[in-house]
Amino acid sequence: MHPSVDRRRSTIPAALLCLLLGVPLLASAADADMAAIERAVAAQHDASLKRLQDWIALPSIAAEDLNSREGADYMAALARDAGFQQVAVLDTDGKPGVFATLDAGAATTVGLYFMYDVKQFDPAEWSSPPLESRLVDKPGLGKVLMGRGAVNQKGPQSALLAALHAIKAAGQQMPVNLVLVAEGEEEIGSPHIGQLVHRPEVEAALRDTVGVFMPAASQDAEGNVTISLGAKGVIELELVASGEKWGRGPKKDVHSSLKAMVDSPAWRLVKALDTLVSDDGNTITIDGYPKAPPISAEHKAMIAAATRVRSEAKSKQLLGVERWIDDLPWQQANERLVSQPTVNIEGLVAGYTGPGGKTVLPGRAVAKLDLRLVPGMKRDDAVAALKAHLAKRGYGDIEVNVSGGYDGTQTPADAPLIHAQRAVLERRGIKPLLWPRNAGSYPGFVFTDPPLGLASGHFGLGNGGGAHAPDEYYLIESSNPAVEGYDGAVMSFVEYLYELGK
Amino acid sequence: MHPSVDRRRSTIPAALLCLLLGVPLLASAADADMAAIERAVAAQHDASLKRLQDWIALPSIAAEDLNSREGADYMAALARDAGFQQVAVLDTDGKPGVFATLDAGAATTVGLYFMYDVKQFDPAEWSSPPLESRLVDKPGLGKVLMGRGAVNQKGPQSALLAALHAIKAAGQQMPVNLVLVAEGEEEIGSPHIGQLVHRPEVEAALRDTVGVFMPAASQDAEGNVTISLGAKGVIELELVASGEKWGRGPKKDVHSSLKAMVDSPAWRLVKALDTLVSDDGNTITIDGYPKAPPISAEHKAMIAAATRVRSEAKSKQLLGVERWIDDLPWQQANERLVSQPTVNIEGLVAGYTGPGGKTVLPGRAVAKLDLRLVPGMKRDDAVAALKAHLAKRGYGDIEVNVSGGYDGTQTPADAPLIHAQRAVLERRGIKPLLWPRNAGSYPGFVFTDPPLGLASGHFGLGNGGGAHAPDEYYLIESSNPAVEGYDGAVMSFVEYLYELGK
Repeated sequence: MHPSVDRRRSTIPAALLCLLLGVPLLASAADADMAAIERAVAAQHDASLKRLQDWIALPSIAAEDLNSREGADYMAALARDAGFQQVAVLDTDGKPGVFATLDAGAATTVGLYFMYDVKQFDPAEWSSPPLESRLVDKPGLGKVLMGRGAVNQKGPQSALLAALHAIKAAGQQMPVNLVLVAEGEEEIGSPHIGQLVHRPEVEAALRDTVGVFMPAASQDAEGNVTISLGAKGVIELELVASGEKWGRGPKKDVHSSLKAMVDSPAWRLVKALDTLVSDDGNTITIDGYPKAPPISAEHKAMIAAATRVRSEAKSKQLLGVERWIDDLPWQQANERLVSQPTVNIEGLVAGYTGPGGKTVLPGRAVAKLDLRLVPGMKRDDAVAALKAHLAKRGYGDIEVNVSGGYDGTQTPADAPLIHAQRAVLERRGIKPLLWPRNAGSYPGFVFTDPPLGLASGHFGLGNGGGAHAPDEYYLIESSNPAVEGYDGAVMSFVEYLYELGK
Repeated sequence: MHPSVDRRRSTIPAALLCLLLGVPLLASAADADMAAIERAVAAQHDASLKRLQDWIALPSIAAEDLNSREGADYMAALARDAGFQQVAVLDTDGKPGVFATLDAGAATTVGLYFMYDVKQFDPAEWSSPPLESRLVDKPGLGKVLMGRGAVNQKGPQSALLAALHAIKAAGQQMPVNLVLVAEGEEEIGSPHIGQLVHRPEVEAALRDTVGVFMPAASQDAEGNVTISLGAKGVIELELVASGEKWGRGPKKDVHSSLKAMVDSPAWRLVKALDTLVSDDGNTITIDGYPKAPPISAEHKAMIAAATRVRSEAKSKQLLGVERWIDDLPWQQANERLVSQPTVNIEGLVAGYTGPGGKTVLPGRAVAKLDLRLVPGMKRDDAVAALKAHLAKRGYGDIEVNVSGGYDGTQTPADAPLIHAQRAVLERRGIKPLLWPRNAGSYPGFVFTDPPLGLASGHFGLGNGGGAHAPDEYYLIESSNPAVEGYDGAVMSFVEYLYELGK
């Protein structure tokens, strides 16, 4: 189907509709034969799916030290196969990355950010084996491919690669040059993404791009798309109180009756944690902590527009939440979501954690925290403030073990990378919502921060779910006319590349 | 070997030594033929061991709902087999108990407190299969039987039963009548011990006893014995903060980025915990909490005497502790141990508890606490004060889930039950240390509190270790002349019963 037609509403043949609307048939595709590409996408459907399934069968998990080298080599082969002429596996102090370029002799160069790693998984929790990529019926949606990495991020990334295969198979000219950076540590907080991106040859290649995007499945179940202009930064860390470091309390767990003569590292952790946030848990009280810049009028307007469309009731139901912080109304709660940094307890672990009780005085207590940073706040400043705060309060023995994280990222709404997204979507009759930034995080900072200062974002039609959870899926054959299946997602990438190449 | 000889020091034949010291050979055993009983103990050694091994092969674990009915039936059969004429399995609202009486036509009746349940175990953590009771060499100690329940409490209890078998086999008169109460919930805090002990027929039988004792392995590696005159009470409970009960925060775990608009039950738990103890974690700050009675001069003197003998350095090394609370000296630290109530964190569990991090905002956070109570403080008062304190501070939504516990217990040093222990030990050349009370807990309150008001304690020579831990053991063949093996433990029970029957 022709991309300039809103397939959600029309049953009139596309060409006729275009004539009626006075829209040139190939308006979105420069001079490329989009119909030929679409036929190639359809013809290659099974091969593309097989490529995705084979990829899912090789899970790379940095946290488990699983298949990272193999995953990087596989990623490199996928890139070579899709037409990248220069492909290199680059070592870092962590897991290797992949750097690849596709020179189409085009005037415009586009950056791509891929991840070849996936989140940990426990097959016992899945209804379908997570490495077998079975096609499963999902009521109201269609046939989905179920597997670890299906939507985060192998599915959408494979669709981007399928777009390149289809353009070539249809004998069409690639509209843009491409620079691909793929990492294998996204799921552990991208600790070495800088080592990859700031290698001279990679930085040089990226410098010429109009920006960098990551393939994604951006449609919700109604087909709506939100374009996010950035993301908060994040720091993941553990605070560890221990008899070992404290010099008080036991070095290992001892019988709890000894609490009457032995100090408790678990209580010490509680007391230290208590100093980090206000009594309601919502305001950061770490001395000298970096401040979030105020939210701009432009961003406030985006939130106002989006919250008018989005259902508060549905959101509360989905999250299992009855009230927002401070009983804020929907719009203000979303302003808080976008604009405020957080200090969150993602886990507490001390002593006996099984069912029932066990009378121990733990020698060690751990709080797993994640700190979200608004763009403008620096990760290193936040960590330094936290450490200084603890030391000043007499908790200098509490270890601050930072395991990953990075600064926030922000891209202007008028960047060509974003403008092209809106053009493609609007031609399809999708009016995207703009959103200032995700409250979640991705390492776009490495592209948007100096020295590169590029635009960065996500793009891709299609739908998926269950990222980081069991039964992760990516929609393959849509039964919902508002939502694209696999081939539609592939075509959205074709259209986006041609739009960027204009 | 004759019990009146201090086998730790002497290599002179027992009878000769007794002559030299002018000690009558059967002084400890009324008119019984102790030598005949000792021969019977030796003759039955293999059968007694087999009885213990068979018992260990049937683990009853209340927390796992494992073999409680079977364990009670087995306990009943063991009692019947050992000569108890009346044996009944009694149901409670929890696991069944066993009540048995042995009427020897004696003037004195002695109470026995047994537990047929054992602590949970993970065979993967054991060097020897925990249900196989293998005999293993333990350097410096001898051959030990390794298995779950070996010392806590099946080993010593089986030795007491072996004593009854031996008295009978030697054709000797049982010196006392016995009343046995056995429970299957000791390891979960004895929640229904009162239902067992306060049944009219059980209470009536116990009322006539000189007191109640639990068989134990009381010798340390040097052969020393400490007689403890009581134990602190204990309350085990969970404090649970949840979005469900709070009406704020999420009902289940959600993505951690939502912390910017959603309240955190984990922070709520931290803030509530913070109010329970002083900044150093050592003084209880719960409003209206019951106070501990001051320590008596008699108890202080016991502690002074014991701490002069016990090695502070060895204790610190064993516990992995460098400093006691407030840097107290050894004697004062032990006074604190004996005399102060505690609020201990035995476990913290919230959100993601595995290796590394996972960006969730937990819908639920749990602190597992154990509260030790000095005799005189009432469990119910403590729980009520904790609940009122939380409610008053605005934490009324935090659940206080008490899973078990009971008041402390105290027995006077001059009780006949204790006097007989000292007599038996001193005849063997062991000068026992008296100790005011264990900082740990056992449900002696059910015997020492009204309406029974009995003496209660533990007794038994022999040695064991690893209770609640992997590789639990009970010494069978001692290579250390100061420490009794299995047959010596059996004889210590024989002597104690004859002493009580005097």
